[in-house]
Amino acid sequence: MAFEFSQKVLFKHCDPAGIVFYPRYFEMLNDCVEAFFDEVLDMPFETLHATGGVPTAEITTRFHRPSRHGDRLLITLCVTRVGRSSAGLSFVATAGAETRLTARSTLVLVAADGRSRPWPEAVKQKLLDREEARSHAT
Amino acid sequence: MAFEFSQKVLFKHCDPAGIVFYPRYFEMLNDCVEAFFDEVLDMPFETLHATGGVPTAEITTRFHRPSRHGDRLLITLCVTRVGRSSAGLSFVATAGAETRLTARSTLVLVAADGRSRPWPEAVKQKLLDREEARSHAT
Amino acid sequence: MAFEFSQKVLFKHCDPAGIVFYPRYFEMLNDCVEAFFDEVLDMPFETLHATGGVPTAEITTRFHRPSRHGDRLLITLCVTRVGRSSAGLSFVATAGAETRLTARSTLVLVAADGRSRPWPEAVKQKLLDREEARSHAT
Amino acid sequence: MAFEFSQKVLFKHCDPAGIVFYPRYFEMLNDCVEAFFDEVLDMPFETLHATGGVPTAEITTRFHRPSRHGDRLLITLCVTRVGRSSAGLSFVATAGAETRLTARSTLVLVAADGRSRPWPEAVKQKLLDREEARSHAT
Repeated sequence: MAFEFSQKVLFKHCDPAGIVFYPRYFEMLNDCVEAFFDEVLDMPFETLHATGGVPTAEITTRFHRPSRHGDRLLITLCVTRVGRSSAGLSFVATAGAETRLTARSTLVLVAADGRSRPWPEAVKQKLLDREEARSHAT
Repeated sequence: MAFEFSQKVLFKHCDPAGIVFYPRYFEMLNDCVEAFFDEVLDMPFETLHATGGVPTAEITTRFHRPSRHGDRLLITLCVTRVGRSSAGLSFVATAGAETRLTARSTLVLVAADGRSRPWPEAVKQKLLDREEARSHAT
Repeated sequence: MAFEFSQKVLFKHCDPAGIVFYPRYFEMLNDCVEAFFDEVLDMPFETLHATGGVPTAEITTRFHRPSRHGDRLLITLCVTRVGRSSAGLSFVATAGAETRLTARSTLVLVAADGRSRPWPEAVKQKLLDREEARSHAT
Repeated sequence: MAFEFSQKVLFKHCDPAGIVFYPRYFEMLNDCVEAFFDEVLDMPFETLHATGGVPTAEITTRFHRPSRHGDRLLITLCVTRVGRSSAGLSFVATAGAETRLTARSTLVLVAADGRSRPWPEAVKQKLLDREEARSHAT
């Protein structure tokens, strides 16, 4: 039930040391979350952002090993917690058997005025299904 | 003894919600670290990267409040820990009296082969001076 | 015989006006060229950059109409000219029937020392095949 | 009367070849235009974007020589043409005596609905003053 997102490491991601410039990883994680909201939650960002957004409130990231140009990353997103208007997510990015990055973040659903607002019921249910699936898998 | 770095929020930093796109904050933090290495440690990245680098091993970030286009951010960097080849840093970004972001990171000095290597003595001393200054201020 | 590259307009591409921030278009064009070198010329950037590169020497771009978050762009790349160590490319980005961007660029193959070097014969032939195909189609 | 904008080449700007990744040059040009609107035209982007914007309609760029990490670029912006709601700009980026980039662009002032609108009289006058100054200097 984990959501998987593939990302080849491209020229634009890499720094003079030939490895991913770490702010670019956060663009990848954001792309992964955007795909998750579109494909799983049926709440595409392009629609959502007409009336608010889901800013990241906090994110903790560990860069286990560097990624190089041409590496094929697989980013796995799991739902770790579902609140009234927030969600906890975890990410693992691997290249083959090697873990490159792990992260945990909290997102908050906000209205156009920036105030938190509750998840729509259908979305919350999908988040809970994911969270449940994950708990059972553990 | 804290190192201060000013950054106006520019058009390029902002997303369709009119606030800083969070991966852009990490570019700002990287710019701040680059300026600190240049101006304080006398170890400019453009020289350092000929023989290695200082990749970020982990970073924990909390986005307290959104920053808007035109805001004038002040990023304060402190040295929280000095290891043989690593350093702990803390960051606070404020706009006026308001805290926008706090972060803690660990950097590691590496050689061209990606292996950690000890801080040059003069650099280590400057890091320790900063760390000491900070402890006394507390 | 044109090379096609799909790119959904993502959150990260868009500015506070809700449209693609134009420097991001150049990242898309670069991704398109990177895919062309990988898939068509069999000269992936991650290999090529071990011994040189293909910097862009010039690029002329017209932004016909803005692109919005969620738009599905199709970028079409054609080879317009093949030199000893350079190539002329043209790009058209459309969303449905609407043209959003047209561009023409010149790339130059360079060695690690930055000097131009001739296309490998097999690559040159593929570029010429593309150029020929294009001339016949016109 | 030319507008000058300084930009050190930072780590974030550079690619695995150790030179500026060309889409990053467009961020620099955009920052330069943003500073010009703020400091010279007294029309800061953060205010302007509440009611529209100044999208780039076209830009032609030539990359004369690569720029490396640590280079200190000076970007010179000139006004080459002033229309009812558009302006032609030219850019030259140098590092010391060496020209790195030249570009010419057209900007269009638009309202929130994306339609072009005439320059406010005070802004137009400042643009014309710049254009005139440039013509006399030639």
